[in-house]
Amino acid sequence: MEEVLKPQSTNNDVNFEPLVVMEFALNTNQAAIEWMITKLQASSERNGAELCVTAVRMEHNQGQTETVLLIGGRTERLLLGAEMMGLMKEYRDGNLREFTSIDINNFRGADNPDGILSMAEKQKIIFRELENIRATDEDEHVPGYEFIKLYPGRTIVKKMLSSDIVKTLFPIHDQDFLKKLGAEWYKRPLSSQPIEKIKYYFGEKLGIYFAFLGFYTISLIPPALIGFLYWITSWQNLYREAIFAVFNLIWATVFLEAWKRYCAELAFKWGCTDFVSSKFEEPRANFHGHMGRNPVTQKPEPVFPKSQQLLRFYGVTVPVLFLCLTCAFYAMLGYFWLQAIVDRWYLEDKSWLNKIDTFMPTVVYAVVIAILNAIYRKVATILNEFENHRLQTSYDNHMILKLILFEFINCFISLFYVAFYLQDMKLLKSHLMALLITTQILGQVQESVVPFLFQRRRAHRLQQAVRKLETAQSVSYSNGDVGQDLLRQVSIESSMDQYRGTQDDYLEMFLQFGYVFLFSSVFPLAAMWALINNVTEIRSDAFKMCRVFQRPFTESAANIGAWQMAFELVSVLAVMTNCALIGMNPEVQRLLPSDITAVNVLIIFVAVEHILLALKMAVAYFIPDVPDWVEVEVAKIAYQSKLALQKEQIQRSAASKRKAEVISTI
Amino acid sequence: MEEVLKPQSTNNDVNFEPLVVMEFALNTNQAAIEWMITKLQASSERNGAELCVTAVRMEHNQGQTETVLLIGGRTERLLLGAEMMGLMKEYRDGNLREFTSIDINNFRGADNPDGILSMAEKQKIIFRELENIRATDEDEHVPGYEFIKLYPGRTIVKKMLSSDIVKTLFPIHDQDFLKKLGAEWYKRPLSSQPIEKIKYYFGEKLGIYFAFLGFYTISLIPPALIGFLYWITSWQNLYREAIFAVFNLIWATVFLEAWKRYCAELAFKWGCTDFVSSKFEEPRANFHGHMGRNPVTQKPEPVFPKSQQLLRFYGVTVPVLFLCLTCAFYAMLGYFWLQAIVDRWYLEDKSWLNKIDTFMPTVVYAVVIAILNAIYRKVATILNEFENHRLQTSYDNHMILKLILFEFINCFISLFYVAFYLQDMKLLKSHLMALLITTQILGQVQESVVPFLFQRRRAHRLQQAVRKLETAQSVSYSNGDVGQDLLRQVSIESSMDQYRGTQDDYLEMFLQFGYVFLFSSVFPLAAMWALINNVTEIRSDAFKMCRVFQRPFTESAANIGAWQMAFELVSVLAVMTNCALIGMNPEVQRLLPSDITAVNVLIIFVAVEHILLALKMAVAYFIPDVPDWVEVEVAKIAYQSKLALQKEQIQRSAASKRKAEVISTI
Repeated sequence: MEEVLKPQSTNNDVNFEPLVVMEFALNTNQAAIEWMITKLQASSERNGAELCVTAVRMEHNQGQTETVLLIGGRTERLLLGAEMMGLMKEYRDGNLREFTSIDINNFRGADNPDGILSMAEKQKIIFRELENIRATDEDEHVPGYEFIKLYPGRTIVKKMLSSDIVKTLFPIHDQDFLKKLGAEWYKRPLSSQPIEKIKYYFGEKLGIYFAFLGFYTISLIPPALIGFLYWITSWQNLYREAIFAVFNLIWATVFLEAWKRYCAELAFKWGCTDFVSSKFEEPRANFHGHMGRNPVTQKPEPVFPKSQQLLRFYGVTVPVLFLCLTCAFYAMLGYFWLQAIVDRWYLEDKSWLNKIDTFMPTVVYAVVIAILNAIYRKVATILNEFENHRLQTSYDNHMILKLILFEFINCFISLFYVAFYLQDMKLLKSHLMALLITTQILGQVQESVVPFLFQRRRAHRLQQAVRKLETAQSVSYSNGDVGQDLLRQVSIESSMDQYRGTQDDYLEMFLQFGYVFLFSSVFPLAAMWALINNVTEIRSDAFKMCRVFQRPFTESAANIGAWQMAFELVSVLAVMTNCALIGMNPEVQRLLPSDITAVNVLIIFVAVEHILLALKMAVAYFIPDVPDWVEVEVAKIAYQSKLALQKEQIQRSAASKRKAEVISTI
Repeated sequence: MEEVLKPQSTNNDVNFEPLVVMEFALNTNQAAIEWMITKLQASSERNGAELCVTAVRMEHNQGQTETVLLIGGRTERLLLGAEMMGLMKEYRDGNLREFTSIDINNFRGADNPDGILSMAEKQKIIFRELENIRATDEDEHVPGYEFIKLYPGRTIVKKMLSSDIVKTLFPIHDQDFLKKLGAEWYKRPLSSQPIEKIKYYFGEKLGIYFAFLGFYTISLIPPALIGFLYWITSWQNLYREAIFAVFNLIWATVFLEAWKRYCAELAFKWGCTDFVSSKFEEPRANFHGHMGRNPVTQKPEPVFPKSQQLLRFYGVTVPVLFLCLTCAFYAMLGYFWLQAIVDRWYLEDKSWLNKIDTFMPTVVYAVVIAILNAIYRKVATILNEFENHRLQTSYDNHMILKLILFEFINCFISLFYVAFYLQDMKLLKSHLMALLITTQILGQVQESVVPFLFQRRRAHRLQQAVRKLETAQSVSYSNGDVGQDLLRQVSIESSMDQYRGTQDDYLEMFLQFGYVFLFSSVFPLAAMWALINNVTEIRSDAFKMCRVFQRPFTESAANIGAWQMAFELVSVLAVMTNCALIGMNPEVQRLLPSDITAVNVLIIFVAVEHILLALKMAVAYFIPDVPDWVEVEVAKIAYQSKLALQKEQIQRSAASKRKAEVISTI
C-alpha cells in the first residue's frame, strides 16, 4: 500500500494540521480511495485541490477495512483559498476587507500568517476546495464502482456522499475552545449569550440563529407579563381583551423591525452585509447547466437559462405543492368528519369502548400527518433540487418556503377550521391549549431530557469507537503519522450525529410565534409558555451544538432569509385572526350595546382590522430597516470603490496614452 | 459704469456662449448688481463661481433702468463643473461613466471638448455653480439693501430670488432644437413620444414624467375598452360587475409593476440608477446646519442632527397636518349638513328661490375648499422647508406626501362619505360622474383652449417685450457685446411663465387614477373618459413645455419618487372600495340567493377582499422590480469597482512598502 499512496505532488507536508475528516464506508474499494486521495493532492492544473492528506487505514476482524482521510492544507494554500472565496478579514484600519494574499501585510496578524485564519475558516476553505473538485471528461465513473456515473463539471465529493461511498465528512472540533464556550453559554442560563464567540466557532449562520433566538425570547417578556397579569386577575372585559390584542399586534411588528436593525448591525460587523450583488456570488456546488461564463465576472461557471428555471418553478413545483397541500387539507377534513362520527357514537352509547374510540381519530390523524410530512419533505427536497437554484441563499429560501407552506397548513389549518368554520370558541380554546402545551412539553422533553439520554448514548458510542480503534488488527498511515489522541477524537466524533442545519430550529420558533400571536386573544398565557420554553431551548440547543453533534461547516448569512418574511406574514395574519376572534367572541358580543345590528358589529370589526393593518404597515415603513451608522459605513465603502474605479480608469488611459506616445516616437 | 464692471479675473472671455439669463428687478440698486457680477466672476478662492458674464443695462423713460446678466462659462470651467457634479457621460466602451477631466480623452466626443456637454447640461452646471455661491462672513447683507440679511454658508442667489431683487433666472431656449422636437412630439398626436429627445432637452425628471404619462395612457386602453363594451351592452349582472372590478384591480397592480421595470430601464440607460448611495449625494442648496463634514466623503457640508429632523417632522409637521385635514373634513361635513337643510327647504316649498338655494352649498363648499387649498399649500411648503431635508429627492417626496394627503381628502372624502356613510349609491354615481366629468372638461379647457389664449397673450407680451427693447433710451453692455437677435429672444423669454415642476401634473394623473380605479364598479366608463383626456393631455403638456414656459433647469430622477407609493396605495384602497361597493349594491344583493343572511354576505365579501389583497401582494412580489439585464449591468459596475478598490489597496501598500524600503536603505 505504501507504494500506491506515495505523495503525488510536493504539496504534502508531513507536519500539516488535520482539520477535516473524510471517512469512507466499511470495505470501500481501494481504487476509489486512492483516486480520491490523488484528486485531493493533485495540483490545480490537474484538477486537484492541492491539499494535504494523511490516510489512516484500520483492519478489523473478518477482514473488514476502514479508511479515514485527515485533510489539511499548507498555510499559503489556505490563504489562497480565502482569497478565492472573498473571505472578509480585519484590515490595518480596523475595517473588514476581502482578503488578498498580495496585500497580506496590511491584514491584522500578518506576522504569523498561519494565525490569520481561524480554525473554522480554514475548515470552510477546505470544504469549498473539496466541493470544487469536479469530474473531468476522463472521470466516467468512480473507480471500482462502475454503476456510480460521474458527469463532467459536477462535484465529486457530493456524489460520493450521496452514494454512501464516503460515510461522513466533517471538520474536527476544537475541544479547548468548546470548553470555554460552553462555560459562558449553556452553563450560565441567565446571562446573555456569547454571540461573537458562537459566530467565531460555528460561523455567521448559526451566530445569527442564536442571536435571533435570544432576541425573540427577550421580546416575549412584555406580552408574557401582560398575559400573566390578565390571567391572575379577571378576564371578562371587551376593552382589556382588545387592548391586549392590539398591543400584541403592534409589538410583533416592532419586534420584527427591531430585529432587522439588530441583524443588519451583526451582519455588518461580521462582514457579510450583502451589498455585494448576488449576481457575482459563486454558484452553489450542486448548480448545474452547460458551461459558460458569468455575465458579470466573466469567470467560467455553469449557465442555466432563467426561463427554464421559471418553467420548472411554475410548471412543476407549484402544481405539485398545491396537490400536497390539498391532501393535507382533506386529511384534516377527514379527521373532523371521523371525530364527529365517534363523538356521536359516544353520545348515543357511553360505553368505555366508545370512549376509547373518541381518541382514535386524533391518533389516526397524527399518524397520517406524520406520514404525509415525511413524504412531503422528500418531495420538497427533490423539487428544490430540481429547480436548480444558482445561489445557496436562493436554494435555502425556496426550501424554507416549501417547509412553511406545509407545516403551516399542518399545524394551523385545524385551528382555523375550528375558529372560522365551526366557530366553536370553546373547542378552539381547548384545541389550542392542547396543541401548544403538548408541543411545548414534547419539545421540552426532547430538548432537556433527551440530551441526558444522548449523553449516555454518547458515552456508549464513545466506548464503542474507542474499542473499535483498540481492537483494530492493524493501523497503517500514509503521508504522515497521526497521534493516538487525535485518532481517538476522530473516532469519537465520527460516531456523533450530524447537525442538519438551522431549518428545523427556525421552524419550531415559527410555529410557536404562530400559536402565540395568531390566537393570542383566545389564550393570552401562550406568550408566558413560549417564554419559559425558549429560555430552556437556548441552553439545550447550545448544549446540542457543543456536545452532541459533529462540528458543522460554517456558512455565512446576512439575515434569517425567508424566515423574516414568514414571521411578517404571520404577524399580518394575526391582525385578521384576532379581530375576527374578538368580534366572534359571544362574551364580547354580550358587552356590546344591544341596539347594534350584527351587520354593523361586523362592519366595525372589519374597519378596526383595516385600521390596524394600516397602522402595522406604517410602523414597518417608518422604522428604517438598517441603522444609520451601518448605512454610513456601507456608503463609505461604496464611495471608496467609486473613487478607486475612476482612478483606475484614469491610470489605464494614461498608460495606454504613454504606450501610444512611445510607439509614435519609434 | 465701464470702470466698475471691469473684468475681475481672467475668466471673462468676450466670445462665450450666453446660456443662462438673470434679470434684475426694475431700478435695482447698482451696488447689488455689481456685487453679484463680482461674485459670478471671482475665482473660487475668493468664493466666486468663475463664470463669464455680460451685463446688459437698458435705460427707459422716467429714468427706469433694467439690468439683465447673460451668464456662460469657458469650456474647461464647465467640464470641471460636470466633474464636480458627477455627471454621467458616454465612455469609450459605450457605458455611461462619471465624467472626469483628467480622463477626458476616453469620453465620446473628446476631439471637440465643447461638444461633450449638451446645452441643457451646461445650463444645469451653471445653475449648480450659481447655487454654490454662498455668503461669506463679510457678506452681512445684500449691498444697497441693508434689510436683506445674509447668513454665512447660505446660497445668495436663492435669497435674491426670494427677496425679488432678481426677478427671474432661466436658461435660454434652443429654438432650432425645439422646432425639431415639436414636430415629432405634439404635432404628431398618434405616434409615440420622442422620449430620448425630451430627456436630452428637458432632463431626466421631465423625461420620466412624459414616459409615465405615455405608459399610463396606453395601459388605460384595456379597461377603457372593457368598460365601453359593458356600457354599450346591458349592465345588470353580478358576475360581470365582479369580473370587471377584479380585472381592473389586478390590471392596476400589473401596470404599476410593469412601470417600475420600464422606469428602471430608462433610469439605467440615462445613467441615473441610484445604486449610488444617497449618503454621499450633495445636499440641496437650501439645506442648512452648522458647517461640518460629510461622514462618507469627508467633504465640508452643512450638518443637521437627525434627531432634530425627526422632532420637527413628528413634533410639528404631523400635528399641523392633522389639524389641516380635520378642517377639510369638517368643511365636508358642513357641506352635507347645509345641503340637507336646503334640500329640505326645497322639498317643503318648491319656489325658484329655494331651487337656487340648493346649489348654494356646492358653491360655498367649492370656495371654502379653494381657500383651504391655498392656505394648505403655503403651510405645506413652509413645513417642508422647516423639516430641512438634506436631499432634493427627500424634500420632493415629503412635499408630494403632503400634497397627496390633502388633495386626496379634498377630492375623495365626499365620495367616501356618500358611499360608505350615507350608503346612497344613486347619489354616489351622480356625484362621481359630476366630479370626474367636470374635472376632465375643466382640464381639457384649461389645457387645450387656454394654450391658444396663451398664444395670443404670448404674442401680446412678445410685442411688449420687443417694444420695451426698442423704446429703451440707451442700451449699454459690459464685458462683451450681445447680438440684437439674442437680446430679442431674451426679452421674449423673460416675459414667459416659469414652469412650476412636475408635481401638479402628477397630481392630476393621481386623482384621475383614483376616480378610475377606486369606484370603477360604479362607473365603468371612467377609464374611457380618462383615456380620451390623456391623449390630449400629453400633447397639450408637450405644447406648454415647448412654447409657453421658460425653459426649466433640468433635474435628474431615477423614478417617479413618492408618486409610485401613492399610486400603489390607491390601488390597494381600490380593492377595499370596490369590494364594498359591489357588496353594498342593492342590485347585486337582489341577485344573491335569498336564504343567505346579511352577515354571511358581508363575510363573503370581506373574504373576497382579503383574497384579492393577497393576490395583489403576490403579483407585486413575484414580478421583479428591475429587469434582469439591468441588474446584470449594475452588478458589472459594482464588481469592477470592487476589483478596483482591491487593486488600489494593493498598490498603496506596495508603494508604502517601497517607501519604507527606501527609508531603511538610507
